[in-house]
Amino acid sequence: MAVYTDITEDDLKQFLTEYDVGELTSYKGIAEGVENSNFLLHTTRDPLILTLYEKRTDERDLPFFLGLMQHLAAGGLSCPLPLPRNDGGLYGTLSGRPAALISFLEGMWLRKPEAKHCREVGKALARMHLSGQDFELTRPNSLSVEGWKTLWEKSAARADEVETGLQEEISSELDHLGRNWPKDLAAGVIHADLFQDNVFFLGDELSGLIDFYFACNDLLAYDVSICLNAWCFEKDGAYNLTKGQALIEGYQSVRPLDKAEIEALPILARGSALRFFLTRLYDWLTTPAGALVVKKDPLEYLRKLRFHRQITSATEYGLVEERLSAS
Amino acid sequence: MAVYTDITEDDLKQFLTEYDVGELTSYKGIAEGVENSNFLLHTTRDPLILTLYEKRTDERDLPFFLGLMQHLAAGGLSCPLPLPRNDGGLYGTLSGRPAALISFLEGMWLRKPEAKHCREVGKALARMHLSGQDFELTRPNSLSVEGWKTLWEKSAARADEVETGLQEEISSELDHLGRNWPKDLAAGVIHADLFQDNVFFLGDELSGLIDFYFACNDLLAYDVSICLNAWCFEKDGAYNLTKGQALIEGYQSVRPLDKAEIEALPILARGSALRFFLTRLYDWLTTPAGALVVKKDPLEYLRKLRFHRQITSATEYGLVEERLSAS
Repeated sequence: MAVYTDITEDDLKQFLTEYDVGELTSYKGIAEGVENSNFLLHTTRDPLILTLYEKRTDERDLPFFLGLMQHLAAGGLSCPLPLPRNDGGLYGTLSGRPAALISFLEGMWLRKPEAKHCREVGKALARMHLSGQDFELTRPNSLSVEGWKTLWEKSAARADEVETGLQEEISSELDHLGRNWPKDLAAGVIHADLFQDNVFFLGDELSGLIDFYFACNDLLAYDVSICLNAWCFEKDGAYNLTKGQALIEGYQSVRPLDKAEIEALPILARGSALRFFLTRLYDWLTTPAGALVVKKDPLEYLRKLRFHRQITSATEYGLVEERLSAS
Repeated sequence: MAVYTDITEDDLKQFLTEYDVGELTSYKGIAEGVENSNFLLHTTRDPLILTLYEKRTDERDLPFFLGLMQHLAAGGLSCPLPLPRNDGGLYGTLSGRPAALISFLEGMWLRKPEAKHCREVGKALARMHLSGQDFELTRPNSLSVEGWKTLWEKSAARADEVETGLQEEISSELDHLGRNWPKDLAAGVIHADLFQDNVFFLGDELSGLIDFYFACNDLLAYDVSICLNAWCFEKDGAYNLTKGQALIEGYQSVRPLDKAEIEALPILARGSALRFFLTRLYDWLTTPAGALVVKKDPLEYLRKLRFHRQITSATEYGLVEERLSAS
């Protein structure tokens, strides 16, 4: 849950004079997102989301994030649409923070997704990848191999506080990934954080993707591996092959993976498990005890990392052979 | 901010089958209220608030709270209206908690209220007092003198951690209030927690009162004293006489205070300052450091208590003499 910056009605009304959105009738801080402060606004017209970008979001990245949302929405993907200000800009300043108004997307994120939902997530991810191909801005992924190393340097010395032997295990994992990370796979704009709370459904129908604030340019199949980690493990740590199969099939029904991407899937999944392990570990070790965020357990992603280390072929994720040979 | 209990879409949809509210299209946990978990629901009809009652709210009190809201709304006071279930009940169970659906009240609470808003608050409070006179249920105030003593017993030993000498000062204050607390003043249903975040405005117009979960039967003028504490002090601790005058005048324009109530105002204000000091002190000393609530500073109310101790007459709160002599 996240409302880091509160806003006064006067400041908000002043901010809204720059937009053509009707009269404000209510605003409530909402318990969504962990990086930024979000408010749900009611107006005499449509409901809106107001996002105040906190310090983890670099203002220089906002043209990429907000432009991408506009680009994807124009291409037919259902995602929140940043509203332009009267001066044409996509964001302004409120309570000392960069702030944007964004269309409200109806739908709910699933606390207990099933395989059929994973299939829809796979499809939507592939559609996003295709639609992102002609987006003109680029943003490097600061949380890929080099970024992991930087992050690790900040946590390594205290890693054994979380589990004995961790320092050695992760250092060796980073070495391995650094030496074997694929370079020549299809690349483009990826979501990079398509977790369950970032996908809305109305009934069983996917109604949209949200939260593009980790989006960047990277290997498309790496994004698939993030979704495998985010959607296809059960709470007890077990990998759900049926969900994995559905997610990959859904993806391939829109954008088939090529042979090199398929072969790379296990190492990409190790990398994405490590990526979330490292940010969680860092937060775990540095978030003050009284902070208003729920610290996520880094060990969940350590277990996933260890699972992927044993995988020898993408078929073990549920990728069906016929599809593989046909591609 | 408060979402203590998360809910799944399936559980929520099941819960909603007991109501006639249209189709659910979204639900978001909102950062409002500190006692219960609140969600803002959008449906194909009207927006709604869903409240899950956490352990601080006694389920046996819900008929009083929810019945009172119905009673006040029927009497013309703008407040949220609990929706009846198909079986006629005013609440059900969701995620193991008692839960009620309540109409959504448009409006915003004021971070920086002015005197004119205090006047509206006074009027609305008096209207609520009049409207509550014929409400048939009763609920004793568990947070009056006896309740303060119980609360104090749990904190007294550690009070000097907060400020040296506090144990002696508060014990003596409690003795004084116990000996001098008024008994024969006009009584009825009071809100008992009419802080800024519980009063909504649309522009300068008061659009409604919310959060009746401390409502109870007690002295009506005690409720006025709570509002003086909640609305008429500035952030630096100064009492704003203009706001006090506006609040009292607003109140008296609807329900004039009698001579005994006016004379009792200083001691009532000491009592209500002590009441909020004691709950904040208790929370301060007992809330675990990692809890998802902002701990409110008990010393704010200690300063208010000390201020009231020096008051010799209600005129010092801004009560105008003519009004006094005319009553």
